[in-house]
Amino acid sequence: MSQAQNLYLADLREFRFLLFEQFGLGNMLGKAPFEDWGEEQVGMILEEGYRFCCDVVGPLNGSGDEQGCRIEDGQVKTPDGFKDAWKKLYEAGFKQLAGHHEFGGQGAPFAVALCFEEILAGSNTAFSMYPGLSQGVAEVVASFGTPEQKKKYVQRLSDGTWAGTMCLTEPNAGSDVGAARSRAVKNADGSYSITGTKIFISGGDSDLAQNVIHLLLARVEGAAAGTKGLSLFLVPKYKINADCSSGGSNDVSVGGIEHKMGIKGSSTAVLNFGEGGTCTAELVGTVEHQGMAQMFKMMNGARILVGVQGIAVASSAYLNALKYARIRQQGASIKQWKDASAPRVAIIEHADVRRMLLDMKARVEGIRCLALQLAVHSDRARMLQGKNDGEAAFHQGMVDLLVPLVKAYGSDQAYQICTTAIQTLGGYGYLKDYGIEQYCRDSKIFSIYEGTNHIQAMDLVGRKLSQNGGANFMRFGQEIGGFVAATKGHATLGSSAEVLGKAQEALMGTAMRLMGWFQGGRVEMVPLNANRFLEMMSETTVGWLLLVGAKIAADKLATTPETDADHAFYRGKIEAAKYFAKNVLPGVAYKADLIANEDDSALKIPDAGFATI
Amino acid sequence: MSQAQNLYLADLREFRFLLFEQFGLGNMLGKAPFEDWGEEQVGMILEEGYRFCCDVVGPLNGSGDEQGCRIEDGQVKTPDGFKDAWKKLYEAGFKQLAGHHEFGGQGAPFAVALCFEEILAGSNTAFSMYPGLSQGVAEVVASFGTPEQKKKYVQRLSDGTWAGTMCLTEPNAGSDVGAARSRAVKNADGSYSITGTKIFISGGDSDLAQNVIHLLLARVEGAAAGTKGLSLFLVPKYKINADCSSGGSNDVSVGGIEHKMGIKGSSTAVLNFGEGGTCTAELVGTVEHQGMAQMFKMMNGARILVGVQGIAVASSAYLNALKYARIRQQGASIKQWKDASAPRVAIIEHADVRRMLLDMKARVEGIRCLALQLAVHSDRARMLQGKNDGEAAFHQGMVDLLVPLVKAYGSDQAYQICTTAIQTLGGYGYLKDYGIEQYCRDSKIFSIYEGTNHIQAMDLVGRKLSQNGGANFMRFGQEIGGFVAATKGHATLGSSAEVLGKAQEALMGTAMRLMGWFQGGRVEMVPLNANRFLEMMSETTVGWLLLVGAKIAADKLATTPETDADHAFYRGKIEAAKYFAKNVLPGVAYKADLIANEDDSALKIPDAGFATI
Repeated sequence: MSQAQNLYLADLREFRFLLFEQFGLGNMLGKAPFEDWGEEQVGMILEEGYRFCCDVVGPLNGSGDEQGCRIEDGQVKTPDGFKDAWKKLYEAGFKQLAGHHEFGGQGAPFAVALCFEEILAGSNTAFSMYPGLSQGVAEVVASFGTPEQKKKYVQRLSDGTWAGTMCLTEPNAGSDVGAARSRAVKNADGSYSITGTKIFISGGDSDLAQNVIHLLLARVEGAAAGTKGLSLFLVPKYKINADCSSGGSNDVSVGGIEHKMGIKGSSTAVLNFGEGGTCTAELVGTVEHQGMAQMFKMMNGARILVGVQGIAVASSAYLNALKYARIRQQGASIKQWKDASAPRVAIIEHADVRRMLLDMKARVEGIRCLALQLAVHSDRARMLQGKNDGEAAFHQGMVDLLVPLVKAYGSDQAYQICTTAIQTLGGYGYLKDYGIEQYCRDSKIFSIYEGTNHIQAMDLVGRKLSQNGGANFMRFGQEIGGFVAATKGHATLGSSAEVLGKAQEALMGTAMRLMGWFQGGRVEMVPLNANRFLEMMSETTVGWLLLVGAKIAADKLATTPETDADHAFYRGKIEAAKYFAKNVLPGVAYKADLIANEDDSALKIPDAGFATI
Repeated sequence: MSQAQNLYLADLREFRFLLFEQFGLGNMLGKAPFEDWGEEQVGMILEEGYRFCCDVVGPLNGSGDEQGCRIEDGQVKTPDGFKDAWKKLYEAGFKQLAGHHEFGGQGAPFAVALCFEEILAGSNTAFSMYPGLSQGVAEVVASFGTPEQKKKYVQRLSDGTWAGTMCLTEPNAGSDVGAARSRAVKNADGSYSITGTKIFISGGDSDLAQNVIHLLLARVEGAAAGTKGLSLFLVPKYKINADCSSGGSNDVSVGGIEHKMGIKGSSTAVLNFGEGGTCTAELVGTVEHQGMAQMFKMMNGARILVGVQGIAVASSAYLNALKYARIRQQGASIKQWKDASAPRVAIIEHADVRRMLLDMKARVEGIRCLALQLAVHSDRARMLQGKNDGEAAFHQGMVDLLVPLVKAYGSDQAYQICTTAIQTLGGYGYLKDYGIEQYCRDSKIFSIYEGTNHIQAMDLVGRKLSQNGGANFMRFGQEIGGFVAATKGHATLGSSAEVLGKAQEALMGTAMRLMGWFQGGRVEMVPLNANRFLEMMSETTVGWLLLVGAKIAADKLATTPETDADHAFYRGKIEAAKYFAKNVLPGVAYKADLIANEDDSALKIPDAGFATI
C-alpha cells in the first residue's frame, strides 16, 4: 500500500525551460520589484521546494485520503501529520515567496511562486487547500483592509499563525452568490453582528493554526438585493484579544463536514454563524457594499490556484504513468505480433501507449504554459506599474482574460489527463496503490469549486471579451496572428503554424457570432455555447504557446549535441507541439462550425421530454 | 446519507419504446424459440425487475461501496446484505430469463434479458458482477462441456447454488493473455493438477454460494507458447462430491483482495492454485488447447455485459441529475439576469443545464440502442438458425461487429456521462450522498476490464472489419446508406440524415485507409488510430439508431394528442436525435480528417523525450 510513500513526481527541467528559455523570466530578475532575485535562487527554490514536498507533504497524500477529516468535540481534526506539515511549510518559508516584504514576504515573481504552488498542490492537493486559502485572505486584507487590519491580519495569515477561509456559498446561494441571506448588523462600537449559515467551506475548520479567520459575505440590514448589497467581513473563529492571542469562542460552530469523492484531507464544512447571537466581525476596509468586488480579488487568486491544482495532479499522473510505462513489460512489438515467442517489451514501445503518453505530455505542458503566461503578464504588470501604466494595463487585461481559461480549461484537462493516466496503467491504474485514481478523484472538484466551469465560460464571453472595449481580446488575437505570420515558413513547424492560423481565425469569427447573439436578442444561445468557446480559446492559446516553445527548442536543438540529455528533451518539446497542432488544434475550427450550426435542440425540448420520471 | 436508500432510477417507457416501437421485438415474440413470450410478459418482467432491484439490490449499493469486501479466515466476506440479495435474486428467477429450458431457464429473448441486466447492474454494479460471472461460466459449459459437465455444472451455476469466475489474468499476462504461466498436468484418472497464480479475479472468492467454480486458462505441459497453447479448466474452490455437495478444499487460496477506486462490493482477488500440490480440475470438453476459443464465448458475453454496466450507471446518473435539475432552485432566468429581485427558477430552466441534460440523454439512449441492436441481431440469429443459415450468419456477423463497440464506446461514454451528471449537480455531485460520484468511480473500470478499450479497438480493426471477407462491414455500411437515402427528404430529420450520410462516407473511407496501412507495411499507424476509428463507427451507429427512433417518434407524434404524456416523450426522442446529429455526428468526418493527417509524432518522439524523469 502507498500510505507512507510519496508518489509525487515533477520534471524540474521543464519548469526551467518554461521560466528561462520560453517565458524570459531572466529579463525580469534583478530589476525592481524583483531586484533580490536571480536565476540561481529560482532554481534553488524549485529544487528545495520539490524536495520538501516529496519529504514532508507528499507522504501524507495517500494516508490523508484514507483517513479524511473528522469532527471531535465540535472541531475538525485533520489527518495525521497535517499539523506537523503545516508548521514545517511555514518554517521553511515557501508560502511567503511572493508576499510583500512589509508583511514578511520574499517578493518573488508570481511565476516562481506559482511553480512552487504547483509542486505543493501536486504532492498533496487536500493539504495545499489550507495554506492556499489562508494566503488568499491575507491578500484581500493587504489590498482592501485598513492599516490596522493589515497590521493585525496579514502577517499572521501569511506565516501560519492563523488560517483563513472564504465564506460565500449558502444553501440557496451557490453559483447564484447574490442570493446570500447571511446578515450583518452594525453595533455601536463599529463592529458587526453576523448571523447566517455558510456551506461547502473549504478548510472551514481545522486544527492547524491558532485561529481561523473567515472572510464572509453578508448583507448589512437594508442593503440592496443581489451581489450589489453584499459586504465583506473578517470573522474569527475565536475572538481576538488586544495582543492578538485567541480569546473565547466567537459563536461560529461547525454544523458538519461533507463526505466527498476526493480531497478528503481538506475539510469541507457547514458553518453556523451567530446561532447564539454573539458572533462579531470587522468590515473589510471602511465602506459597506463593496464585498463582491473585494471578494473577487480572492476569487481570482483562488481560480488561478484551482487551475494550478489541475496542472499539478495531471502532471504527476502523467509522470507516474510514464514511469510505469518504462518499467512494465507486456506483449511483444506489433511488428512481431504473429510470433508468440517474440520477446516481451516495455509498454512504452506500444503505439497506443505512446499516443496516450504524448497526449498527456502535450496537454500537461500546455496548461502549464497557460498558467505561466498569466503569471508573467501579472509580473510584467507589476513591474510596469507607475512606469508605463498603459502597458501595465495591457498586461493586467491579459491576466483578466486568462483567468477563466486557466481555471476552467486547466481543470477539465486535468481530469481528462488523470483518466488517461489510469488507462495507461490498465487494471493497476484502478488500484489505490498507484495513487493515480486519487489524483483523478481529487481533480473532479476543480471543475466545480471557485465558480463552476460554466461560470468561468460566462465570465469569459459575458465580461472579459468586451473588457476595454474589446481591445484586450483583439490584441490577444493579433499576438497569435503575428506568430503565425512569422512561423508559417518554418521548416519543422510551418504546417503546424498554419493550423494555428486557422484556429485563430475561427476563434475571432466565433467571438463575433457570440457578440451578435448578445446584441440580436438571442442571449440564450450564448450559455449554450460558452463552454465550447472557452475551450476553443484555450486550445488556441495552448497550441500557440506550445509552438512558441517548440520554435525555441528547434533553435536550441541545432546547437545541442545528440549525446546531450537536452537533445531528447528538445525533441520532446517539438513532437508535443506538433501532436497538439495535428490532433487537438484542428478542433477549434471544428467547434466553430458546430457553434455556427446554431443548434437549439436543448432549448426546444419540453421539460417533460427529457424522461418519464 | 445514502446508505440505506435506493438511488437507482430507470425510465421504463424508454425500454418499451426501444423493444416494441423501434426494435420490433413484437415480431419475434410468440414464434420459436420465443413461443412462450408475449409483450405483456416482457412488460411485467421490466416492471417487476425494476421493483425488485429498487427494493432489494439498490439499497445495498452505497453501503456496499462504503463497506467493501474483506478477508476473514482466508475467505472473502461480501458486504452486508449481499448474501441475502443473491438468494432472493435467484428465487425470483431473474437470472434464468434467457437460459435454455433444459437447464431451468425461461428462454426469453436476449434483448429482454439485457434490459433486466441493465436494471440489475444500474442498481448495484458491484453486486451484479457475481451473478453475471456465474452465468458466463454456465454458458461456456453449456456450449463446450461434455454431457456430464453440463448436467453437473450448468443448472447449479444458473440457480445460485454455485458461483463462477473467469481466471485469465496473471502478474505478467494481462492484455497479453498468451503469456500465461499457469500449468496443468494430466493425471492418470483424466483429471488435471493445476498450479499458478491468477490476479484481478472479479468475484474471485465470496461467501454467496456453496462453491465457486473457476474457469481457468492454463497450459498443459508441452503445449505451444502464446494463446494457441492454452486450455480451459473447471476448477472448484471445494472438491465436488459424487452427489455434488462440497467436499474439502481444492487447494485454491485467496492471496489478497485489491483496494480499488470503485466497485468495492465486488471482490477482486489474487488466487493461488495448487500451492499444496492438490488442486485438481476438469478440462472443459475433451480436447486440449481449445481454451482461448472457448474462453472467447465467455469473454464476448462479458464484454457485452460491461457495455451494459456502462449504460446502466450512465442512465441512472442522468436520471438522477434530471431529477435534481427539476427540483433545485438557483439563479434567475437569463432573460432577467440584470434584475437581482427576479424570481429564482429550477436549474432545468438554465440553458447550460439543459445542454448537459440533453447531451446525457442522447448519449445514454444512444449506447442503449447500440446494445439492443446487438441483442436483436443475436435473437434473430437464434431464430433463423437451421431455417435460413445465411441470414443467421449475417446476424451473427453483426453481433461480432458490434461487441467491441458496445464494450468500448459504451464504457467510455458511461464515464463521460457520469462526469457530466456530477457537473450538473455542482458541489452536491461531488458528495457521496447523491450517489453519482460512486457511479463515476464504478464506471472507470469498464474501459479497462474484459479487454481494455484499445484491445476492443484492435479487435474491431484487426479482426472484425475483415471478417467474412469484409462483407459484414460493407453490409453494415449499406444499411446506414439506405436509411440516409430514405430519410434525407424528411421534413424534420432530413438535414440530420445528411450529416449521417457524411459520417457514413467518412467511416467507410477511413476503413479503407486502415486496410491500406495494414497492407502497405505501415502497421504501427493502425494502433495509433484504432480507438479513434472505433469511436467513429460507434458514433455513426448511434447517430443512425437515434435517427431511426426519431423517425418513428415523428410518425407517432402526428397522431398523439398534445395532452398525452407520450407527446412530450416523442418530442424528446426527436430533439435528442437532432442534438446528436448536430453536435456529435459531425465529429466522425472531423476524426476522419485527423486520421488522414497521418500524424506519427507519437512514434517519432524519443523515449527520453517524454520527460527527464
